[in-house]
Amino acid sequence: MFESAQLKHRVGKAAYAQEEAALRAALLNAQYDLKLDGSFPVLILIAGVEGAGKGETVNLLNEWMDPRHIRTKAFGTPSDEEAERPAHWRFWRALPPKGQVGIFFGAWHTLPIVQRVMGQIDEGDFTRQIADIQRLEQMLCDEGVLLLKYWFHLSKDQQKKRLKALAADPKTRWRVTETEWAYFKRYDRFVEVCEPFLRQTSTGAAPWIVVPGADARFRALTVGRHLLAALRERLDAKAAKASPEKTPPLLAPSDRLNVLSALQLDQPMTRTAYERQLEKWQGRLNLAARHPRFRKLSVVAVFEGNDGAGKGGAIRRVTGALDARGYDNIPVAAPTEKKRAQPYLWRFWRPLPRRGRFAFFDRSWYGRVLVERVEGYCSEADWKRAYGEINDFEAALVRHGVVVVKFWLAVSKDEQFKRFKLREQVEFKRFKITDEDWRNREKWDAYEAAVCDMVDRTSTATAPWTLVEANNKYHARIKVLKTLCEAVESALAKPRGGTGRR
Amino acid sequence: MFESAQLKHRVGKAAYAQEEAALRAALLNAQYDLKLDGSFPVLILIAGVEGAGKGETVNLLNEWMDPRHIRTKAFGTPSDEEAERPAHWRFWRALPPKGQVGIFFGAWHTLPIVQRVMGQIDEGDFTRQIADIQRLEQMLCDEGVLLLKYWFHLSKDQQKKRLKALAADPKTRWRVTETEWAYFKRYDRFVEVCEPFLRQTSTGAAPWIVVPGADARFRALTVGRHLLAALRERLDAKAAKASPEKTPPLLAPSDRLNVLSALQLDQPMTRTAYERQLEKWQGRLNLAARHPRFRKLSVVAVFEGNDGAGKGGAIRRVTGALDARGYDNIPVAAPTEKKRAQPYLWRFWRPLPRRGRFAFFDRSWYGRVLVERVEGYCSEADWKRAYGEINDFEAALVRHGVVVVKFWLAVSKDEQFKRFKLREQVEFKRFKITDEDWRNREKWDAYEAAVCDMVDRTSTATAPWTLVEANNKYHARIKVLKTLCEAVESALAKPRGGTGRR
Repeated sequence: MFESAQLKHRVGKAAYAQEEAALRAALLNAQYDLKLDGSFPVLILIAGVEGAGKGETVNLLNEWMDPRHIRTKAFGTPSDEEAERPAHWRFWRALPPKGQVGIFFGAWHTLPIVQRVMGQIDEGDFTRQIADIQRLEQMLCDEGVLLLKYWFHLSKDQQKKRLKALAADPKTRWRVTETEWAYFKRYDRFVEVCEPFLRQTSTGAAPWIVVPGADARFRALTVGRHLLAALRERLDAKAAKASPEKTPPLLAPSDRLNVLSALQLDQPMTRTAYERQLEKWQGRLNLAARHPRFRKLSVVAVFEGNDGAGKGGAIRRVTGALDARGYDNIPVAAPTEKKRAQPYLWRFWRPLPRRGRFAFFDRSWYGRVLVERVEGYCSEADWKRAYGEINDFEAALVRHGVVVVKFWLAVSKDEQFKRFKLREQVEFKRFKITDEDWRNREKWDAYEAAVCDMVDRTSTATAPWTLVEANNKYHARIKVLKTLCEAVESALAKPRGGTGRR
Repeated sequence: MFESAQLKHRVGKAAYAQEEAALRAALLNAQYDLKLDGSFPVLILIAGVEGAGKGETVNLLNEWMDPRHIRTKAFGTPSDEEAERPAHWRFWRALPPKGQVGIFFGAWHTLPIVQRVMGQIDEGDFTRQIADIQRLEQMLCDEGVLLLKYWFHLSKDQQKKRLKALAADPKTRWRVTETEWAYFKRYDRFVEVCEPFLRQTSTGAAPWIVVPGADARFRALTVGRHLLAALRERLDAKAAKASPEKTPPLLAPSDRLNVLSALQLDQPMTRTAYERQLEKWQGRLNLAARHPRFRKLSVVAVFEGNDGAGKGGAIRRVTGALDARGYDNIPVAAPTEKKRAQPYLWRFWRPLPRRGRFAFFDRSWYGRVLVERVEGYCSEADWKRAYGEINDFEAALVRHGVVVVKFWLAVSKDEQFKRFKLREQVEFKRFKITDEDWRNREKWDAYEAAVCDMVDRTSTATAPWTLVEANNKYHARIKVLKTLCEAVESALAKPRGGTGRR
C-alpha cells in the first residue's frame, strides 16, 4: 500500500500558492452544493503514522472550507460516558447528518491496530475486528454516506527526520514525547500490521487513500484535490441514481402455518392469579435490579407487537417494579427530518443505556423490517440487508454486556377489532385509535409475513425473540415480566453478564 | 433461523398434484428464458441437516427442469487433483456459465461447519472462514450470479423419526449408517454452530432460505416456488438494470513522480556478464526445482509489463532452466465468449498448478485493473472492487503453499518506440506488432496510472510485485530469474513453503 507514498514527492512554494487559491474556492463551492443538495453526508476518516501531518491537514480543511458546517471529532481514550456503552457508540453519536461534512480523527481503526501492534489481541481477534469494520463501513456506504478514508504515511527515515525536526523547534517540541519515540521504535511492526489491515478494509465503495506525508505542500494538495474530486463526482452523479437493486425474494409463507399462527393466543389467567403473579415477579425483578452485580450490566428491552396488543400496558407493569431513576422509556414514532438525515440505526444508538440501567423501547429498530418494509418506506434491498445489520448491532450490545430482551405481543385479528372498537367508545382511550390503525389492519397478512421473517432472521441465542400470546392481557404481562426477570437473573449469575444466554 | 421451519408444515396429496403440474411448466419456461437471456448464471447451494431431503430435492429439480442445462455437482472428500489446489479450486471449476443453472451439493459451507462441530478448528479460524465466505459470495453476486442458498432443516425429533423410518425400510436402509447416527448424536452442537453461521452468511444479495424438511411435498413446493419467484424476479427485472454505481476516485497521480518514473530503466549489463549470470541462476533454479521439498510446493509467476518490454523472452530464460514436464505456460489474451460467461477470476483458477509444478502467466488476472480499466471494458465499480478480490485470491494461493511471484517489466516510451519500429522491419518479428500496440501506446499515461494503483494496492508481504527495469534485456532477464529463484529457495528453506516471505 505504501510504495507510491514513500517516494520523495515535493511541491514548490509558488506552484502551491497558485493552486491553493483555486482549490479553496472549488472546495467551498462543493461544500455549499453539498449543503444545498442535502441528500448524503460526507465522512472523512484521518489516520496514519505519527508526524505525517494528520493534525495539520484537519486544521487546513477547516480553514479551506466553512468550519460551521464541518464536525471535527478527535477520538482519544473513551470518556466515562463512552466507556459504559458499546465501543461504536461514540462514533454513531458524532456522525454528520446529510448535507454536512464530518471529520473523524482516530476512528474505529485506531484501537484494533494499536492493540495488535502492542500484542494485546491475537490474530483471531484482529480478524474478527476487521470483519466488523468491513460490515460497518459497508452499511454506512449502503446508507448513502460518502466515506473518504485518508491514511497519512511516512517511511521510517522520513518519520525519524520529522520527529527530530519537531523536537528541535521550541514551538513544536511539546509534540514529541516519549510516547512518540516509543511508537517510532515499533515502526516496522506497525507497518507490518497496518499494511494488510489497509488492504483488507479497502473496498470499491470505501478505498483507503494513502497520502504521502513528508512534504507539507504536496500532502495538502493531495488531500484537497482528492476530496474535491470525490465530492464533485458524487454531487454531479446524483441524477444518475441507481434504480433499487433486485435481490432474491425471501421465503413467502406458503401455508397458513407460521410462528404466529402456531401460537395459542388465548391463554387462561384469572385476575386473582394475575395479581399474585404480578407481585411475585415485580418483587424478583426489583431485587435483581438492586443486586450489586447489576451495576456492571444494562438491559435493553424491545417491545413490538400488533396495534392494540398492549405494549404500553406491559411496559408499565415492568417499570412499576423499578426505581424511576433507573430506566428510560423510549417511545419510537416515525422518524423526524433530523433522524432521516442519518443512517436508520443512528437514533437507536443514541439512547443506549449506561451500565446499571434499563432502556425500554416501545417499538424499535425493527421498524425497518416491519413498517418500512410493508409500507415501502425503504427499498427492498435496504430492508433485506437490515437483518444482518440488526444482528451486528445487537451482537455489539451483547458483547458489551447488555442483556437484550425482545418481545412480540400477538393478538388475533378478532381481538384487535374488539379493542379498537372499545377504544373508540371509551372517551379516555380515544386518542389511542387513529385512522392509521385501521389502515394497518388492512395489511394484516403483509405484516404477518414480515414478523415471521423477522423472528426467523433475528432471533439469536444471545438476543432471542419471545413471542407473547396477548389476547389475555394478564397472561401477556406476566410472561413479559417473567421472561425479562429471568434473563436478568441469569445474566447476574454469570461472571460477565449477557453472553451465552439462550 | 429455524423457528418457522420447525413447525409441522404439511401439504396433501391432491393439493400437491394440482400445484406441481403448473409449477413444473413455469420452472421449465423460466429455465428456457434464462438460457435465451444468457446474461447471468444461477447457482443453487443445497445444504442442511442429514435426512432433510437434500438429495431428493436435487433429483426433483433435475426432473422438473431440463437436466441438460443443469450442472449438478456434489462435493465430497477432495480428489487428489483437488487436494493439490487451493480449497476453492474445485468450486470455481464447477461454476455454471451465464444462462445455465448449477446445483452445488455441499459447497464451501460444509467443511467449516463440520470442522467447527468436531472441534477441529477454533472460533478464530471459524470467524476467518466466515469472512472468506462472505467475500466470495459478495464477489459472485457482484459478478451477476443469482446465488440461491437453501438450507434444509429438521428439528431433533423430526430427524430421529426420519432416520428411523429410513432404517426400517429395506429400500433405504443403506442410507443410514453409523455416520448418520453419529451426526444425530451431535444434533444440538450442530445447530448451535449452524445458526450463527447461517445468520452471518445471510446477506441481502444472498440470503439463506431455510426449508422445512419434514414433509416431502411441502418441501418440494417450497423450493420450487421460491426458485421460480427468484428466477422470474431477476429475468423480469433485467430491463431496469442499475446504472454503474459511483465510487470514490482513487488518488490521481498529481506529480510525475510514481513507482514507475522513480525507476532507473537503463541498467548496465554486458553480454558477457549476462551469459555468466544466466548460467549461474538457471543452474540454481534447476537445482531448486529438483529439491525433494519442492514436491510440496508450487509456483505461480505472473508476467505483466509494457508492450514490447520482453515478457516472452524473460519467461523463456526461466523455462530454459526447467524440465518441460514440470511447468505450464499460460498466455492470456482477450477472453473468449466462454470465458466472458464466467466471473473474471474463473479462467485463472482453472490452470492453477498441482503441487511440484510451475505456472507462468504471460499476462494475468491483473488485466482487470489494467486493460479492462483503461479501455472501459468493465465498470468503474468492477475494477475498483477487483483489488480486494485479487488480494483474496492470492492470499488463498499463499495459504495453500503456492509461491506467488509477480513481475512488472518496464521500458521507457522511447525504448518501446525503438522496439516497435524494429519489429516492423524484421520479417520474423512482424507478427508481434499490431495496430493495437500503437493504439495502447497512445494511452501511456492512463496505463501508467493504472500500474501505480495496481502496485500500491496489490503488492503484499506474501505476494509482492517486483518492478523490473527492462530497457536492457540482459538486466531484466537476470533480475527476473534471480528474484524467482530466491523466492523458491526461500520457500524451500521454510518448514511449510510460501508463507511469510517478503
